[in-house]
Amino acid sequence: MPIVTPIEVTDDELARVHFDGDGLVPAIVQDIADGTVLMVAWMNEESLRLSLTEGRTVFWSRSRQELWRKGETSGERQWIREASYDCDGDVLLFRVEQDGAGACHTGNRSCFFRAFGRGVGATGAGTE
Amino acid sequence: MPIVTPIEVTDDELARVHFDGDGLVPAIVQDIADGTVLMVAWMNEESLRLSLTEGRTVFWSRSRQELWRKGETSGERQWIREASYDCDGDVLLFRVEQDGAGACHTGNRSCFFRAFGRGVGATGAGTE
Repeated sequence: MPIVTPIEVTDDELARVHFDGDGLVPAIVQDIADGTVLMVAWMNEESLRLSLTEGRTVFWSRSRQELWRKGETSGERQWIREASYDCDGDVLLFRVEQDGAGACHTGNRSCFFRAFGRGVGATGAGTE
Repeated sequence: MPIVTPIEVTDDELARVHFDGDGLVPAIVQDIADGTVLMVAWMNEESLRLSLTEGRTVFWSRSRQELWRKGETSGERQWIREASYDCDGDVLLFRVEQDGAGACHTGNRSCFFRAFGRGVGATGAGTE
């Protein structure tokens, strides 16, 4: 298992994050090794705090309305190496080491496996 | 100026994109040269079609409620080299050549210049 690297944040830093009307903020997950954008999911404040404390991604499932520890059942955990927020504080970016085959529930390494201009069902761009 | 590479899409492909209740979908912009995640902005169907046709990013400004050709005034245009959509069709990813100093209105190359765990105002992660 990769070494866990918790990130200690201050309340001032967390106050920079703007959660939407549902208390959520989108989080991009990127492979730190080669830069592949793996997926986007949602976090509420609790899942953001847990992610930083536990050093792995924890999201809020909008469909199930519950915390979702990425890889808890699949083993495809994401170990956070860097975490940042954008200039408006309304998008998060996590640079991770991805366990297992990948991030996507389809079995693809990245969720962005369908490229425009290649027809429906084709794959290519975004997976590097 | 970089060579423009329009992407021809079919209506079937565009039908895979799920716009939200406001008719918008978030679009991640990534530097194709080194993988830096530059920014996230919003597109409606018109701006998505224009982006693919013109080969450069065109967004929908939620604050101004109008089309926004990235770099039209600043010169910091983004030339699209690959465009993809995620497994749920609710996030877009554009891999681009970035003109000028960068993507962020703050003058930073990436909007994700603030890392958690380094205190408010510190920079670092995400800018590579």
